[in-house]
Amino acid sequence: MEKIDPGLKNLNNVFPDSFTPEQLAKAKTLFLKRLAELAHRHYGGKIQVIPKAPVPGYNWFNVWYTPGVSKISTDIRDNNDISYELTNRGNMVAVVSDSTRVLGDGNCTPPGGLGVMEGKAFLMKYLGGIDAIALCIDSRNGRGENDPDKMIEFVKMAQHSFGAINLEDISQPNCFKVLDRLREECDIAVWHDDAQGTACVILAGLINALKLAEKNIADIKIVMLGAGAANTTIARLIIADGANPENIVLFDKDGPLDTDRKDFKEDKRYYRTWEICQVTNPRKIKTFEEAFSGADVLIALSVPGPNVVKPGWIRSMSDKPIVFTCANPVPEIYPCTALEAGAYIVATGRGDFPNQVNNSLGFPGILKGTLLVRARKITDNMAIAAAHSISEFAQKKGINPDKIVPTMDETEVFKEEAAAVAMQAIKDGVARINLSWDEVYNKASKDINHARELTQALMAQGFIQSPPEEMLKEALEWSVKKAE
Amino acid sequence: MEKIDPGLKNLNNVFPDSFTPEQLAKAKTLFLKRLAELAHRHYGGKIQVIPKAPVPGYNWFNVWYTPGVSKISTDIRDNNDISYELTNRGNMVAVVSDSTRVLGDGNCTPPGGLGVMEGKAFLMKYLGGIDAIALCIDSRNGRGENDPDKMIEFVKMAQHSFGAINLEDISQPNCFKVLDRLREECDIAVWHDDAQGTACVILAGLINALKLAEKNIADIKIVMLGAGAANTTIARLIIADGANPENIVLFDKDGPLDTDRKDFKEDKRYYRTWEICQVTNPRKIKTFEEAFSGADVLIALSVPGPNVVKPGWIRSMSDKPIVFTCANPVPEIYPCTALEAGAYIVATGRGDFPNQVNNSLGFPGILKGTLLVRARKITDNMAIAAAHSISEFAQKKGINPDKIVPTMDETEVFKEEAAAVAMQAIKDGVARINLSWDEVYNKASKDINHARELTQALMAQGFIQSPPEEMLKEALEWSVKKAE
Repeated sequence: MEKIDPGLKNLNNVFPDSFTPEQLAKAKTLFLKRLAELAHRHYGGKIQVIPKAPVPGYNWFNVWYTPGVSKISTDIRDNNDISYELTNRGNMVAVVSDSTRVLGDGNCTPPGGLGVMEGKAFLMKYLGGIDAIALCIDSRNGRGENDPDKMIEFVKMAQHSFGAINLEDISQPNCFKVLDRLREECDIAVWHDDAQGTACVILAGLINALKLAEKNIADIKIVMLGAGAANTTIARLIIADGANPENIVLFDKDGPLDTDRKDFKEDKRYYRTWEICQVTNPRKIKTFEEAFSGADVLIALSVPGPNVVKPGWIRSMSDKPIVFTCANPVPEIYPCTALEAGAYIVATGRGDFPNQVNNSLGFPGILKGTLLVRARKITDNMAIAAAHSISEFAQKKGINPDKIVPTMDETEVFKEEAAAVAMQAIKDGVARINLSWDEVYNKASKDINHARELTQALMAQGFIQSPPEEMLKEALEWSVKKAE
Repeated sequence: MEKIDPGLKNLNNVFPDSFTPEQLAKAKTLFLKRLAELAHRHYGGKIQVIPKAPVPGYNWFNVWYTPGVSKISTDIRDNNDISYELTNRGNMVAVVSDSTRVLGDGNCTPPGGLGVMEGKAFLMKYLGGIDAIALCIDSRNGRGENDPDKMIEFVKMAQHSFGAINLEDISQPNCFKVLDRLREECDIAVWHDDAQGTACVILAGLINALKLAEKNIADIKIVMLGAGAANTTIARLIIADGANPENIVLFDKDGPLDTDRKDFKEDKRYYRTWEICQVTNPRKIKTFEEAFSGADVLIALSVPGPNVVKPGWIRSMSDKPIVFTCANPVPEIYPCTALEAGAYIVATGRGDFPNQVNNSLGFPGILKGTLLVRARKITDNMAIAAAHSISEFAQKKGINPDKIVPTMDETEVFKEEAAAVAMQAIKDGVARINLSWDEVYNKASKDINHARELTQALMAQGFIQSPPEEMLKEALEWSVKKAE
């Protein structure tokens, strides 16, 4: 047992040596949750709004505010696009949720998502050099139901204050309608990170896993567990990037997706799921056994494990099985069990195992590139371009079965991603302005470095104070006791 | 002609000596607008969102974001009020406008208000230690009309992410309904700065002006020009603070307000104006001449001058006439002209004349006090308490006819205001938590000092760069040429 490092670098070594691997995993999760509670209370949240422009004297208020600012209003009135130049709009993202499916915790009531959405804003600044704020909204109608139309109306009303919208943690089936209608009807980019973001990062991992396994995306058989917003979008994106839909089978809790699925056919709100039913699994495979037999890839985003995916299923897969088990907080099968069963590569959502396929590898770069060319949309092509940029970045650094995607501290990836996404936006005709790859890369670098250096400077100078040692100790002791 | 000071301290001395006072006033306004345009473009807006909590290492993302943050969601789900402690909500204000009456520039289209609302957020941080963001929304319905119900719905949906709402620059008559409905129906404080904010600061000035003139608020005759949201609210507040409504006459462009005003009686959207018609001017004074004759106070918030208020009217007032002429950018009568006509005290909205009655003296302290006790409302009593706190602060510093309110650099006022407002909130039963005067004062001081020191540190270290000298020169040369 080591003394806990203030940067939390040695989390694996601070728990009693007597802990089993399961106890250790459980204790770590308990520790992180307890520390989150103490630290969020200590700091009173995670983001703040500060001036971006100077106050060299109080008379500057006459420039930043009335009477000088009147010229800004009339300039924008006469040409709305000037708002991207004269205000912070062009770098501003709203992280919008109705808090109906917050992480794995389901409906958390409207303010319940604030911690997560503020966290997203925090990451956007630190990793992407983006200004973002949390908007957790009450989308309930008079009957107390979460109404997708209310959410759509809300975002359309708010769009003029932002450069892009990041939708988050909206339950099914509302999420489909909300995203698709807003992508169609808004004049700024609307991104659903749970769906497109997850899909982008999984695709990046898949590209490199296939490279290591020396397999071609066009030839592989894929089993997918879970048919939520994420997995249906993953299916759409990997098909768009070359996978053969006939070789893909998705399962949800009611069985395989195919044209026999009357539930999705009849409930029009599940039109995105029904699209997948129509293109995948034409042979109508019905059992896990049949689906896994000879499969090359498993992509599971289903329910927390560890015993959801059986070792036998993995044993029945083709050679060099590639396994994505991304349920949080516990993957559908522990990596060690999957590897024992013959998996060649295992990726999860967790940072304490190798191959963390984490949305945070995607959205900061994707949104930064989107903002820099003021894109009106984020096309699937842009998400795919981001995926390839992530996988190429990892290749340059060197990939192996324990490292198919960059780790969270390889933050150079976001700059390249931003440039790749911006170039694709221009190609797809959704960018408001044209910039070169270098221009986007350099501006993204400048903003990202600025955000990081500014935060570090504030920490060094005590404007953001270090976490008290006692807080770490308290969380640690509490979690050890609970896990014993 | 002096060299222009980067803090803009010597603006009166940088224009040609040959300029007449009118030319100088015009040139200054032109300069400020031109500099605003150049500076807003240079900095790309005025506010940014940054971390409030540290990143001692990348593993802290597991605390600030998933999996740790999951505990924040479930804690808030189980007790919504915990959101004030575990997120930044408790210090977060949305500055919401539909941009239909932006400063004196009328309807500026939805994004047109962004410069002003960002400016408000900028001031809130620098003066009040508050985090705020701009939400300029599109409140138009299917018929293209700005619909107050849409705005009400929007704010109600958004309220769970904020500690308070600052409404701004909403045109008449929608502003009345939007404010009153939201004050009633929201569970957080909703403030309409154009109305309550202006009223608070004018009342503060009036209290001290009456003290200097040795008159009692209960005895004075008041003429008011303009019957918009501001002046009707001013009337309500000064009546609540002791003025006799029978001695007040308001005029709008169609004449005096009284019970003959069928327009306000019949159009129910003007119910706030009609309330004033019913309580003021019972003698049905019809002419300016009659109203001004023997009046003690003029409060004009009407149309830009300088020849809207006639010197003769002031000459006909009682002894020691008190004159508020607050139209922007040019007051209804220039202070020098009013003083020549016998005015004892003249106050305007401008920072380059004595006695600037500026909203910015109010909202940072009022909202800070409101947030610190998590008030559900901002009552008129709270606005009146703020006014008295402002006037007492000025008294302590020493008042005279050229200084009835604090100047913008006497920023200590906001801390006392915050405490006064919070105490009144507790008294009025709208506070969620009880704090002592000292507790509020100390927390407000800490946050305000932090905001200012942080901004100054970022400026000193180049994270916020100084305005380029050429920018000031360009704005100056341009404005001199235009004013010649």
